[in-house]
This record gives sequence, structure tokens and C-alpha cells, in this order.
Amino acid sequence: MALQAAIISIGDELILGQTVDTNSAWLSEQLAQIGIGVSQHITLADSQSDIAEHLSRLAKTVDVIIATGGLGPTDDDLTRHALAEVLGTELELHQMTLDKMTDMFARFKRPMAQRNRIQAMIPKGCAVIDNPIGTACGMMVEIGAAHAFFLPGVPSEMRMLCTETVFPLVTKLAEKTRDKQVIVSRTLCCFGQGESTVAEMLGDMMTRHRNPVVNSTVARGIISLRINATAADRETAQKMIAPVEAELRQRLGDIVFGSDDDTLASVVVKRLMERRATLATAESCTGGMLAGALTDIPGVSSAFLGGWITYSNDAKISMLRVDSELIDSDGAVSESVARQLAQKAREYAQSDYALSITGIAGPSGGTAEKPIGLVFIGLADGSGTLVSQNILHGDRKMIRTRAVNTALDMLRRRIS
Amino acid sequence: MALQAAIISIGDELILGQTVDTNSAWLSEQLAQIGIGVSQHITLADSQSDIAEHLSRLAKTVDVIIATGGLGPTDDDLTRHALAEVLGTELELHQMTLDKMTDMFARFKRPMAQRNRIQAMIPKGCAVIDNPIGTACGMMVEIGAAHAFFLPGVPSEMRMLCTETVFPLVTKLAEKTRDKQVIVSRTLCCFGQGESTVAEMLGDMMTRHRNPVVNSTVARGIISLRINATAADRETAQKMIAPVEAELRQRLGDIVFGSDDDTLASVVVKRLMERRATLATAESCTGGMLAGALTDIPGVSSAFLGGWITYSNDAKISMLRVDSELIDSDGAVSESVARQLAQKAREYAQSDYALSITGIAGPSGGTAEKPIGLVFIGLADGSGTLVSQNILHGDRKMIRTRAVNTALDMLRRRIS
Repeated sequence: MALQAAIISIGDELILGQTVDTNSAWLSEQLAQIGIGVSQHITLADSQSDIAEHLSRLAKTVDVIIATGGLGPTDDDLTRHALAEVLGTELELHQMTLDKMTDMFARFKRPMAQRNRIQAMIPKGCAVIDNPIGTACGMMVEIGAAHAFFLPGVPSEMRMLCTETVFPLVTKLAEKTRDKQVIVSRTLCCFGQGESTVAEMLGDMMTRHRNPVVNSTVARGIISLRINATAADRETAQKMIAPVEAELRQRLGDIVFGSDDDTLASVVVKRLMERRATLATAESCTGGMLAGALTDIPGVSSAFLGGWITYSNDAKISMLRVDSELIDSDGAVSESVARQLAQKAREYAQSDYALSITGIAGPSGGTAEKPIGLVFIGLADGSGTLVSQNILHGDRKMIRTRAVNTALDMLRRRIS
Repeated sequence: MALQAAIISIGDELILGQTVDTNSAWLSEQLAQIGIGVSQHITLADSQSDIAEHLSRLAKTVDVIIATGGLGPTDDDLTRHALAEVLGTELELHQMTLDKMTDMFARFKRPMAQRNRIQAMIPKGCAVIDNPIGTACGMMVEIGAAHAFFLPGVPSEMRMLCTETVFPLVTKLAEKTRDKQVIVSRTLCCFGQGESTVAEMLGDMMTRHRNPVVNSTVARGIISLRINATAADRETAQKMIAPVEAELRQRLGDIVFGSDDDTLASVVVKRLMERRATLATAESCTGGMLAGALTDIPGVSSAFLGGWITYSNDAKISMLRVDSELIDSDGAVSESVARQLAQKAREYAQSDYALSITGIAGPSGGTAEKPIGLVFIGLADGSGTLVSQNILHGDRKMIRTRAVNTALDMLRRRIS
């Protein structure tokens, strides 16, 4: 049996729903790679009794507990008190931590508030986990047979303490356990078909309780197919993934645009750079989001020259010299205007490719003939100009995001 | 005592950390407004025994259980089986649900897979919650004294079933309970100072166990101060919030740019529209994100004319006729180039205001003299051109986002 872990997230802002907990997902993913299974995430208020109750309960059922949050200097930070209660002990001053904190405030030339002192108070018997980037140090202790770790809730600090201290320790624990198993994942990123169509194309490959198992999730039209392989070590798991990935790629063909952390923008930029080709953009309804996605990618400046945001009709005419008669006759959201926008952007930027987007993102402005979600995308290159007509679903945000993805995918297919 | 609820999120993708759970936060926030306190969120794998164990445990300690996920048609969807186990009953076919599902597939002209049939199998004694937009219907039942609701995990479907069915029912439950309390929230949105500086300006206003209580969270340089008031009804809570809000606004001055769902972009667009003023943009390192944020706002076309993304040096010269000598002498990231970009954008767009951004977003390209994070922001209007020099912290994404927010805030202060 692999080690089992539980994750506790502590904070009123979490339980009131004012902050979405992202720490638990990150911790789960990292622990899976170490070979530790997570059986539950628990989110609790800053309540000493609730925290103490769940710590006691979990210490009897899991091998590893990772708790985040409630280690700050204010009155609502009660995790250390709850831990002392569970251990039947008291808080005592940890002088090294206090000294370090005093130094830190001195370096930033700020007075240390008296209440920061509580952050150096540690339940007797706990070891301190140094936090080089914040005032909340972590703590670790065994509660019964469970190894418990207490970390600050700030994601950057939590991640650093995990990487530096917690993961190396729990990796050793996992290695001591017989029948250690790791989960290795590989994600294929797909665009251009709905999730149910992709599921049909995969048939029984998504059946449960296989190993590797294939799961799918969808966000903004991007379908992520995750292959999870469970094995004794990473190498074996990777070998198990390879044939499944090959089979998925064969069934899905060019719907698959990348893997793992690839995005449509990163794949398009990579292909442009490989071909030493350049791109320009002209955007109306997406208002800069397409260029924003492209310039997310570091080093894009050799491939992406620049773009125009021709949001108003006047801007289309003055900035890119679109024929005003064309806008009058066909409307700004039309095949012909999308075509001109792409052609003019390519001409003025002197780029190899140009993408244009013009559409109706809503929430108002739709008609029976031109409904909300109607988006024309133009792609100009040396051989001519393609225009696609799309009906995209969702609210304003989704229509704009899908328009950007559809444009990027159009270019991806053109240059593959 | 107000009613107490627990939220259970079910799914392997959640417990493996491959998907971040946003349903729990949304449910918590909505339940708080109804006056129901949430004491814990639990995330579990698609494991019949785990789900059954926690349902039994929670039914003894809370009044309301809302569980999401695990109602799909595939083998890993085990929530209905776990519920049947807890109730000591069996699944039986719910003919109306099956008929509805058959109709739905017929409408979309798709064959209904045999395995969808399981979605019409309901534990005996449960009521069905109709799902008009998906095949996974919800279920509700009393487990001991607890009212338990089971909903699909897809956020849009979950929210619809809550709004249509679950919330009206639990509101009635809450109204029957004596000493019902509601939590009403008001958020003030701040920009331009760090969180600790804001905390110092507020002094004891952030002390815990006050009512209303003030919490702060920070994301991308935007500090949200949340005032939570607990009272017997909404009106009383709102009356309690008013003086606290006034005091906060007085202490913080023009750091406060808006409230609740306001964004810097929405506030800037509102002010521009009130003044019938127009804006254009010229972006280098942010590559369209500023314009993208502005065009997020519906109806912005009367205020935002358009923009240029002059990502390469050539684009700065060819698209906005920035002096190439200036780029040679001062560099593209300089006070003088930011100034020209703003002036030219205003001139060519014939707008009242123009914003420009040029900087080094990293991860490479920094020097000792011009480090990563150096960003110049230009603001041109009829009275001249301001340029601010900023050192922004964080990775590429954060530097770009902060640059956009800093530019929007500069314009906000200019037109207030």
C-alpha cells in the first residue's frame, strides 16, 4: 500500500467562499508524483476546535497530514493553538525564529509589530520549518503514527517550504514503505471538437480501472486528455504511458495540438519560430486578447511583429484603411471586412502571416441575421486569404476566448 | 444558532489535483447570504466507501449537506451508489428522467448510449432535481436529520440546479430556524499601496471578532477589503456595513477605486463614458492585454477607439512613426519612447486620452541599468503627456498584469 495523505486548508476566507483554494490541488498533484495517495481535502474555518477535531480524526487514518493556513500574526490565526491542544502541550518561544524575524524587519527598515511575536511561538515538541521568504515559519511533528506538516497559506511560501523541506522528507517516508507506487501523468491537449465527440473517438480507452487510465477535462474549448499511469517507479510508469499516448494520437489526428503545458499560442509561436516566419494581428471583438495570448510566450518578439486593435469602425478605416463602403454594405462583422483586416495587417506589418478577428461578443448587439457569437476569422499569407465563419457559444468572456483559440488553431493547421 | 452546512466535492480529478475545485467556494458564498454557515468542505475521490463514510459522519453533525460530482454516466461515477448504501436501499429506474434524457438526445440528433441509462437510476426514497441543461439530474433526501442534496459537478449545471431548486428549499429551512443570521458582504477595491501599508492605515479596524469584520486579500496588486456583517436580516447587516465603509473610504482616500465587482478597467471605462471621452492605447511589453482588459467591458466601443501593439522595434517605427533615432539612443524601453508612443497613439486615433506601455517583462532581456520589471507608462491628453517609471515585481505574467493595472490606475487618477 502506498502512503495515504490528507490535506487540510484553514481559513475563514476559504470556508466563506471568498477565496478559492488552489493549494490543495497543487499539493495533491505533487504528492501523487512522489507516490503518496491523497484521500481527502478538508477546508476548515479559523476555528481552534474544528482544526483540533479533524487533526485528531485524520491522525488515526492517514500517514501524512499537510495543513496550510492559520499561521499569521493576527487573532484569527489559530492553527498553532489547535496543534498544541491536540498534542496536549503548550506554546513556547522559538528564539531562532524570533531572531530571524527581527532581522527580516530590520532589513526592510520596518518596525516589527508586537503581535508578530506569536509567529515565533511553537508547540513544544514540534520542529520548525524555516521560511526564508515570509514571517510565518512552518512546523512539523508526529501525531500518533501520522507525520503532520503545518505550512503558511500564501501559495508562494507554501510551495517553497514544500519543495525545500516537506517533499524531500515525505519522499524518504514513501521510499521506506513497501509497494511504493508513483503516479505519472501525461496530458494531450486537443482543440476543434466537443468533449463528447472526442470521447466517442476514444471509445473504450476511457474505461475506468485500467492502468494507465485516461480522463478528460474541458476548459474554454480546450480538451485535456490526461493519461495517469500507476507503477512502482517513474520509468515503468512512463513506459506504460507511451503506447497509450501513441494510440490516442492516432485516433485523434490533428485535433491534438500539444502536450502537458502547451497552449495553442505556445505551439503556434514555436512553429512560427521554427520556420522563421512572422505574424501580425488585427482584432476587433477580441480587442487585443489574441496578441496578449501570443505575447504571453517569452521570446515571441522574433515571430510576432505587432498588431492593430480596430475596435471602432473609425479605427478600422483610419488605422488599417478598410473600405468604408465595405463596412456600410456588409457590416463590420462580415466575411469581407475580416478578409480586408487580415490582408491590410499583413501588408502594413510586412509579415508572413496575419490573423484578423471581427465578431459580436455580446451581451448586446446581436440580430437575427448576425447573432451574438458570430465571429469571422481571417488568415492571410503569401498564397491568399482564408476566412472562417464561426458561431461561438457562451457569454462575452467565453466567446472572446473561443475566438482567440479558434484563430490560433486556424493558423496552427495552416502551418503544420 | 444558524443552520450549519457541509459541502462535499467528489471526483478523482479533484483529489489528484488536476482540477481546482471552484464549486465549494461559490456554494459557501451563496449559503452565507442565505444565512447558512458552512463548517467544512470535503473533497473526496470517486470512491463509494469514502463517500458513504463521510455522508454518514456529516449527517450526524450538520443540518445541510450539498454534494457535487460523481453523477455522470461512466464507471467512475459512484455517488448514487454511495447514497444508496448510506440509505440502506437500492437504485430504481426513474422513468420521467429516462424519458427526458431520451428526448434530449433525440433533439440533438445523437444516439443515447446505453450507459446514460444509469443517470436515471435513483436510490429509492430520493426526490429528483430536474436538470434542464444536462443529462445528470440532481437528487435530494433526508439522511437522519440532515437535508442532503446531490448535484452534478459541472459548474454551470450545479449553479442552475442550486438557483432553481436547492437555494429556495434551504432558504425555507433557514427561515424556520430560530435566530437565523445572514452574512452580508461589501468589498472595497484598492490599488496603489501594498497590503501591509493598507493594514497600517486601517489600524484596529481589521481586528477579529468585531461585527462587521474587515478582511483583506490581495491578487495581482489589487487589494480587496471585505466587510462582512452578520445580522438577523439583510437590511440590518447593510446598515451595519455603511459606517464601516465610510470610515474605510475616509482612511484610504483615493486608493479605493471601486467596490464589489468593479475592476480598474470597468471604473476607467465608466468615467470615460460619463465624460464622453475617448481612449486609445499603444502597447509593447503587455502586447494587447491593456486593450483586452478594456474591451472586456460591454459597451466600451463608445469610449475605446482602438490601439496599436508595437511589440517589435520595427512596429514602433512603422506603425506609430516613433523616431528610430530615439530608439537607438534611449532604447525601446525608455521614458522618451513611452512618451512618443502615447502622443502618436492619441494623434492617430484622434482620441482624448492615450495610454502607452513599454517595459521589460522577462524572463530574459534585463540588464543592470534596465532590469526585468522596468516599465514606462505614458499618458497623453490635451494638456500634455505624463510618463511614469515603475519597477514591477514578479514573473512575466505578474509584471504584465501589474503594468496593465498601473496604466489603468494612472488614467483613473487623471480623470477623477
